[in-house]
Amino acid sequence: MAGALDIIGDRWGLLLIRDLLLGLSRYDELRTSTGIPPATLAARLKHLVDVDLVERVRYLDRPPRDEYRLTEKGRSLWKVGVALREWGDAWNASGFGIPMEMIDSETGHPVMLDLVDIETKQAVPLERVELRAGPAADEAVRNLLAARS
Amino acid sequence: MAGALDIIGDRWGLLLIRDLLLGLSRYDELRTSTGIPPATLAARLKHLVDVDLVERVRYLDRPPRDEYRLTEKGRSLWKVGVALREWGDAWNASGFGIPMEMIDSETGHPVMLDLVDIETKQAVPLERVELRAGPAADEAVRNLLAARS
Repeated sequence: MAGALDIIGDRWGLLLIRDLLLGLSRYDELRTSTGIPPATLAARLKHLVDVDLVERVRYLDRPPRDEYRLTEKGRSLWKVGVALREWGDAWNASGFGIPMEMIDSETGHPVMLDLVDIETKQAVPLERVELRAGPAADEAVRNLLAARS
Repeated sequence: MAGALDIIGDRWGLLLIRDLLLGLSRYDELRTSTGIPPATLAARLKHLVDVDLVERVRYLDRPPRDEYRLTEKGRSLWKVGVALREWGDAWNASGFGIPMEMIDSETGHPVMLDLVDIETKQAVPLERVELRAGPAADEAVRNLLAARS
């Protein structure tokens, strides 16, 4: 989990991922929405391209204009973005209440992140969920899981 | 979402939240599991206490010994932790495969994060989910949502 943060870089990187996840793609849009200073913005975008979270795509030849799109690896950060937003909304981290909601377009019901059974797709209560060592658990992980029980 | 990262502090803060979520609580356990240098560890724990994610609780009087526990606000970061872990596992950010798995203790089925209908608790396919302006949406959020459609 800290490895993920190393890849994203810093809070500027996270802000950019957020806005790219929301569908923004152009340099000027990203500059306006994130408020990142121009020199930092160029460096942060380059970092995200270097770590394969973002790709730079030419959308106009004359004059040359590029836009930034999330790669599959970058798009798959969406749950992290939703989890951070839910937490911020729940604890009012922004101080301004709830700015965005997610709804099921077919039913109109609100949706939220939860743990689901991967077969039945039904939510499982958190108190029933257990952590266990996975196939690549090393001694440190086994010790950690043993220490908590 | 960037506000959340400001509160957590940095990658050390995130590492500590991860291990506290896993159930560790003592200074020495946290030092060993995170590898954070002692001076930094004390400062980071103090920061997490200051921002109300962690509380320091005396568990032994002679000699005086404290442990660190997540507050409700800190515990509610669990989805962020799970989302980062799932992403790291999917993209092999650690380079060592999958060290931990989450299972439903009643059925033995693996569980994972997904978006669920808050009424039916059934997962909703991502392509059906829409973002819309919430009660506290300001002009910037409305412009952002308009720009992406």
